[in-house]
Amino acid sequence: MYRDRVRLPSLLEKVMTADQAAALIQDGMTVGMSGFTRAGEAKAVPEALAQRAKQQPLKISLMTGASLGNDLDKHLTEAGVLARRMPFQVDSTLRKAINDGSVMFIDQHLSETVEQLRNHQLKLPDIAVIEAVAITEQGHIVPTTSVGNSASFAIFAKQVIVEINLAHNTNLEGLHDIYIPTYRPTRTPIPLTRVDDRIGSTAIPIPPEKIVAIVINNQPDSPSTVLPPDSETQAIANHLIDFFKREVDAGRLAKNLAPLQAGIGSIANAVMCGLMESPFEDLTMYSEVLQDSTFDLMDSGKLRFASGSSITLSSRRNADVFGNLERYKDKLVLRPQEISNHPEVVRRLGIIGINTALEFDIYGNVNSTHVGGTRMMNGIGGSGDFARNAHLAIFVTKSIAKGGSISSVVPMVSHVDHTEHDVDILVTEQGLADLRGLAPRERARVVIENCVHPSYRDALAAYFEAACQRGGHTPHILREAMNWHINLEERGHMLAAS
Amino acid sequence: MYRDRVRLPSLLEKVMTADQAAALIQDGMTVGMSGFTRAGEAKAVPEALAQRAKQQPLKISLMTGASLGNDLDKHLTEAGVLARRMPFQVDSTLRKAINDGSVMFIDQHLSETVEQLRNHQLKLPDIAVIEAVAITEQGHIVPTTSVGNSASFAIFAKQVIVEINLAHNTNLEGLHDIYIPTYRPTRTPIPLTRVDDRIGSTAIPIPPEKIVAIVINNQPDSPSTVLPPDSETQAIANHLIDFFKREVDAGRLAKNLAPLQAGIGSIANAVMCGLMESPFEDLTMYSEVLQDSTFDLMDSGKLRFASGSSITLSSRRNADVFGNLERYKDKLVLRPQEISNHPEVVRRLGIIGINTALEFDIYGNVNSTHVGGTRMMNGIGGSGDFARNAHLAIFVTKSIAKGGSISSVVPMVSHVDHTEHDVDILVTEQGLADLRGLAPRERARVVIENCVHPSYRDALAAYFEAACQRGGHTPHILREAMNWHINLEERGHMLAAS
Repeated sequence: MYRDRVRLPSLLEKVMTADQAAALIQDGMTVGMSGFTRAGEAKAVPEALAQRAKQQPLKISLMTGASLGNDLDKHLTEAGVLARRMPFQVDSTLRKAINDGSVMFIDQHLSETVEQLRNHQLKLPDIAVIEAVAITEQGHIVPTTSVGNSASFAIFAKQVIVEINLAHNTNLEGLHDIYIPTYRPTRTPIPLTRVDDRIGSTAIPIPPEKIVAIVINNQPDSPSTVLPPDSETQAIANHLIDFFKREVDAGRLAKNLAPLQAGIGSIANAVMCGLMESPFEDLTMYSEVLQDSTFDLMDSGKLRFASGSSITLSSRRNADVFGNLERYKDKLVLRPQEISNHPEVVRRLGIIGINTALEFDIYGNVNSTHVGGTRMMNGIGGSGDFARNAHLAIFVTKSIAKGGSISSVVPMVSHVDHTEHDVDILVTEQGLADLRGLAPRERARVVIENCVHPSYRDALAAYFEAACQRGGHTPHILREAMNWHINLEERGHMLAAS
Repeated sequence: MYRDRVRLPSLLEKVMTADQAAALIQDGMTVGMSGFTRAGEAKAVPEALAQRAKQQPLKISLMTGASLGNDLDKHLTEAGVLARRMPFQVDSTLRKAINDGSVMFIDQHLSETVEQLRNHQLKLPDIAVIEAVAITEQGHIVPTTSVGNSASFAIFAKQVIVEINLAHNTNLEGLHDIYIPTYRPTRTPIPLTRVDDRIGSTAIPIPPEKIVAIVINNQPDSPSTVLPPDSETQAIANHLIDFFKREVDAGRLAKNLAPLQAGIGSIANAVMCGLMESPFEDLTMYSEVLQDSTFDLMDSGKLRFASGSSITLSSRRNADVFGNLERYKDKLVLRPQEISNHPEVVRRLGIIGINTALEFDIYGNVNSTHVGGTRMMNGIGGSGDFARNAHLAIFVTKSIAKGGSISSVVPMVSHVDHTEHDVDILVTEQGLADLRGLAPRERARVVIENCVHPSYRDALAAYFEAACQRGGHTPHILREAMNWHINLEERGHMLAAS
């Protein structure tokens, strides 16, 4: 059953159970695991680790590409396995542990983790656990539905555990393009100038003797949880598509736009869906995660090529795409997240980056991570990698949340992930604010006019006008700047009377 | 006198007075001028413009490389010429106008201005005014002591005014390396892999017919105002050099460190001076502005090569360096600021970026620009270009200011220019905080232990401990987070009793 997937015969003797492989991971180790946006994570070994930790205390530092599926972060947290975790997560149980201070979470730009490892600024993984479709005749590892940080983890770790997952079709082989930047001080340019360039190998090249265990598994990826467009996300998509049309008319964008990046989530997905009805053709994506909308756009003939680091699909789309991968294979590539998100490439290609904000303020500072300035949601992910160097750095959000008790547009954000220097366009269902070339006072007027929910508009305008009376390049009244957040925390509504 | 400097004879008929040239600049125009950190700015034409505006109302949008010398921003502001100004300034009169809202200031990453122009996201300059050493036989412009944005301004503008400045020695010719990235979507990698690579031309290539005026001038650059090291900046330098030694011992840095970038100012200058007494040899710089310390380090034999975008020297050093430029010429290059600060190159070379913070908070967020979250000082400059992609992103500041009424280390910064994701090392005269690989609660302990002035340490520790009691990944008490800034504003001391 799996012998055709472990093609270097000498490695067959390394096949063992997940429990046996997990026993190689010892207390205090740093472990690098595959997995990016619930795609392609190692599944059996971390689950075995969680089970073992119920008997025997075990703490590790866990690095992944991004978020894991199959409730692994939940199970590892509940078993008390996680001392440290980086660089991203989306699990509510782990989130709680991060926020009560029992798991140390390092929230990083997704392009930077392996750069810091390469330069020994983070502790190298003792062991890597990588999900694979197959191991080649040379002993190289063929990843599954994500590349993430898997290649560098396998290269840096002293020992590698491979999970061969029979639930993934072997037709995934050939989809990946593994390129690792050369070492400083003699690093050369990343030779990628088009979204469809292939610059590396189709498998992760490591000396086969580093593979210390092979576990056979048959558990699928978790389906994505993206919601279908609703009237508000549809309105956001419409504002953005109208904006793109104006940019094309003004000659600032070509008719096929520019390579698109869309963060994970329902709003970005709605925007991509909106492109289906748009006049734009011959589109390309240079993104992190490829979602349902990527394949819908390909099916509609709108999307010519998509480069990502993972594929995360809904149950609806999963069997269709992976069962008919030959239909898409010449239009797809999966790269290490260091390359999918690399500032050098993002700047060169001039991508359109569309990411979701938790909240933004009247001057265009964006909070992507912290509720009330304090409690971590998921992490910054790749949003900063893209926004800083994008041709257009776009942030989207619904203008209100929790039935209107929260305005996503505030006087001053409670935490800053993207500064006003890096934000070009803000969109809510109310409208779109084009901040390019504007000074802060001009930005505030455009944001208040276009993005704020009507129930908050007067209050926000009043704050801004009062702040302007006191002066300053970026007028603020520090005594009041955080009041909306404080009201929410103490009284349950941002505009609650004190 | 100037005929040997205007080497394309047909251009000699374009020589005119500064007043005549300034008359080409009309109300409402966007003007791109040379000048970067008080070096190489056009001098006669903007001064003539300021004089003319006293008679006749005139408003322009002014773009430069960075700050101007010779009080030009002051004179232009006083004459009411500036409607809009970007991307950087250091003038106290202009600062006041920015803060009272009468000049719209756009505070940009210095690598991004011409990228946004190239993509028509900012209005292109109608006219460029560029200081030059000479005009070549081909009609190309040889810049003086800075390149800044001059090359792209001259390329984008419909008309170009050249100020030939006889105060600059013609031996500057050959120092510059003008490279302009190719246009998207067919942009190719920037072919620079070493600090001493030359990848462009020594003059700015434009069609000579675009040169509509040539003004002859003889006014020197303003001297730099950098202060000599004092005991506190010396202590900061010592902490940093000890840190570099430990990095070398740990194998994370080579014995010649990595290409160094130092922001303008007295603290960064002191750090560079400190390297004179250090054990490090064969150093290189890949920076924006080259200050006195660059040449002191070269004289001492410590510095092998320096790449910058401008040279800004004190009166003490000026005549010596420019009078003996042949001594330095094979160790120096001046590049467009787009290239000196380019994220692609910064990431590839793995620079050590040393920049000055106005304040930072316990979690490592840095404010470089706004006093009290509201009033602009100078602008972000290149600090973000370097910090985001540096091998080491270092921010330095004295731990207190204004005789102790201000702590530079605060619970929450009043404005964020660099997020915790981008900051590796913080240094004050008290000590050094190494934040690499730490979660926020860990960062706070390291910052409080190492960087805070003793007179603020207990109060900061108390804030942090109380915030931790309330929980959160990045614990804060929003009701108190801004109190130090509010105290300062209302009572003149950050710890004033309310």
